[in-house]
Amino acid sequence: MKAEIITIGDELLIGQVVDTNSAWMAQRLNEQGIVLHQITSVHDDRQHILKALDEAFSRADIVLTTGGLGPTKDDITKHVMCEYFGTTLVEDPCVREHIHTLYKDRPDVLNRLTATQWLVPESATILPNRVGSAPIMVFEKEAKSERLEVKGEGQNSKFLIQNSKFLIALPGVPHEMKIAMTEQVLPYLRLKAKGERLEAKGEIIHRTLMVYGIPESKLAILIEEWEIALPNSMHLAYLPKDGIIRLRLSSYGEATIEEVNQQLDALRPLISDYLIATEDLPVEAILGNLLKQRGQTIATAESCTGGRLAAALNAQSGSSAYYMGSVVAYANEIKEQVLGVKHITLEKYGAVSEQTVREMADGVRRLMNTDYTVATSGVAGPTGGTADKPVGTVWIAWATPEGTEAECFHFGVAREREQITQRAVTVALVRLIQSLNSKH
Amino acid sequence: MKAEIITIGDELLIGQVVDTNSAWMAQRLNEQGIVLHQITSVHDDRQHILKALDEAFSRADIVLTTGGLGPTKDDITKHVMCEYFGTTLVEDPCVREHIHTLYKDRPDVLNRLTATQWLVPESATILPNRVGSAPIMVFEKEAKSERLEVKGEGQNSKFLIQNSKFLIALPGVPHEMKIAMTEQVLPYLRLKAKGERLEAKGEIIHRTLMVYGIPESKLAILIEEWEIALPNSMHLAYLPKDGIIRLRLSSYGEATIEEVNQQLDALRPLISDYLIATEDLPVEAILGNLLKQRGQTIATAESCTGGRLAAALNAQSGSSAYYMGSVVAYANEIKEQVLGVKHITLEKYGAVSEQTVREMADGVRRLMNTDYTVATSGVAGPTGGTADKPVGTVWIAWATPEGTEAECFHFGVAREREQITQRAVTVALVRLIQSLNSKH
Repeated sequence: MKAEIITIGDELLIGQVVDTNSAWMAQRLNEQGIVLHQITSVHDDRQHILKALDEAFSRADIVLTTGGLGPTKDDITKHVMCEYFGTTLVEDPCVREHIHTLYKDRPDVLNRLTATQWLVPESATILPNRVGSAPIMVFEKEAKSERLEVKGEGQNSKFLIQNSKFLIALPGVPHEMKIAMTEQVLPYLRLKAKGERLEAKGEIIHRTLMVYGIPESKLAILIEEWEIALPNSMHLAYLPKDGIIRLRLSSYGEATIEEVNQQLDALRPLISDYLIATEDLPVEAILGNLLKQRGQTIATAESCTGGRLAAALNAQSGSSAYYMGSVVAYANEIKEQVLGVKHITLEKYGAVSEQTVREMADGVRRLMNTDYTVATSGVAGPTGGTADKPVGTVWIAWATPEGTEAECFHFGVAREREQITQRAVTVALVRLIQSLNSKH
Repeated sequence: MKAEIITIGDELLIGQVVDTNSAWMAQRLNEQGIVLHQITSVHDDRQHILKALDEAFSRADIVLTTGGLGPTKDDITKHVMCEYFGTTLVEDPCVREHIHTLYKDRPDVLNRLTATQWLVPESATILPNRVGSAPIMVFEKEAKSERLEVKGEGQNSKFLIQNSKFLIALPGVPHEMKIAMTEQVLPYLRLKAKGERLEAKGEIIHRTLMVYGIPESKLAILIEEWEIALPNSMHLAYLPKDGIIRLRLSSYGEATIEEVNQQLDALRPLISDYLIATEDLPVEAILGNLLKQRGQTIATAESCTGGRLAAALNAQSGSSAYYMGSVVAYANEIKEQVLGVKHITLEKYGAVSEQTVREMADGVRRLMNTDYTVATSGVAGPTGGTADKPVGTVWIAWATPEGTEAECFHFGVAREREQITQRAVTVALVRLIQSLNSKH
């Protein structure tokens, strides 16, 4: 099965909002063996939506839309869907009841605009939206051959429509979309896919190796023979970001997981000097897993990264097993008073110096008594750079049970503040991963 | 002028990467008076790219593409462009020289794969990529009438092509794309637009008011009469996120800035109880600007937000004027030892309690001596919830010169860990903005 996503909303096309929904939905679709062919972002405009629907259906079996389902005047998706599928709005008592239950303690929400939310397209199947008022609508585009329906009662009715194209309209608010996908749309698609099981070619496989410390072109030359010998059923991609390259080997139903793993087994020894992980995880999760396995703990002392290292380290559930806390010492007074950096050190070498980050790393270790600490101090810019320490200069220190190391990095080649701090966070974590990996 | 963006890369369609480029590019295009009509994400696939180019040119005058310009085998954009525009690759001595200069200290990068980067399509104008090896390529689609060329020397040559459609291929790595847009593509588009100045209808205007503490449907009813009376030249959009609603009034060249401002002047008194800002800024920037104006300072003590409040507060350049530092006290020992929360408080009321967040807020104020402090403690989930304190329960305390306040929030209605902490950060900052705004 092939799918497309149409994201609807002027906010996407004027750049007020980044579309994070599509990537999340793409992952979930791939897990179900559904290839996402294209993502299209269109305006809240009747003509534009109608045209995008026609084009998407010319290529795909399933079209998922997000956005435009709110109760305000700018949201027109429901009305355009009615026009496209030749149906009209009718009151749905189940949706009405659901909305009344949802907002039973919010009389100010139960107003006449919210009441338009229980008007739904007559020909659509409505899936429940547990956390919001916008109904999730399923439209059948064209039933091509025999058709099997399995109907339940009321809002929980489930259809099994064979050999037809269909559209599912989802809300654009990310957390509503995610719950709707997880609880309603994916089970619906699994049911739908059952009827096609015999035609399915096999599962979609993506396996990723994470590599650090080698330029992309050099890596490509290093593994060239291996890459050329890859069977046609597999496809390699290079994804460089923040100094890490994700090497992804994909197969769209034409190779087995064993065949893919065999290729990776042959690849691994070629890149062992640079390999930091054998699955596509955030670096903070790789480090967290290593610390958890070893029962070790970590804390951070941050100046230029300003809490981002801390936030990365506690982003995973269960991080309290290894992450204790942090001091963000943005001002020099805080470096002295809280972390115990010596006044003379700051005066003599400055805040962005080897001496200062070492004292920061050691200071937070005294304070929080952890196995590892990381400290950062740098010039994130855009102002504050000097000839000696230009924007992008970042000192990082790692205090480990074996001692304290420090290194200076230059991330400043025309990068922005946010990119410099993000790069510092990534490098700080990757170096710790390498250090832990070397101590098996 | 109407533009479209085509983002090229399998990673976008399997959800491995979120497309952040398009939103940034959309903002820049709008600033130049160029309407972005559609964003399309396609696979690294010859047929798919060719079809997307045809479709985009059927609707738009300018097509911008990102991605697929690397030196590795999976990157095919340059070859597909050659096919589409009927040209072939030739060596460009300027690009070769530029790449040699760029990597003069990196002999491992100057390998035979990187050498393919100075092969460029013969018919394309090449704009310099200051920070990377992928050349930025401009292709002319069809010259419709007279044509004026203004050529300079070598890589810095500038064309002024009138009445033609064209394509600009940009690298997909965000920081390379941003520099290329800022330094090369936007000046090129400004030059191009000059020839069309007489046809231009006027500038694109977006003005945003930020509102907090009212449901979207209630807000729409509150301003209904005003909205109905809006002239056709203006369009209102509601963008709810994290409890904040951005009310955006847009005009695509049909109204003047004075006319738009007049409408906003009429709107403001209607929503004054909920208005937190009159421009579309991150909440941390609104708060930062207020603190800077008043010469006041802030620090944070964080448990469940884990450094995200700190990171928000120092995300702006110049934040060292008001942001001093933070303690992320993830473990209870750190709350006691660093922030001075009493052992008996933690034992009697627990970490997620009014008493604890108050002592955290007061503790970090003693430590960092700031005018304001904010403290958070909550259950971010997915584990750790109890009947009494379910996932999503967050206590926040604000210590101000007038005293310390605390409030309990419930963000848990099916939200994920990341959303709960993000919501807590937003609410903590918005309440401080309201508090500062009330003390004119």
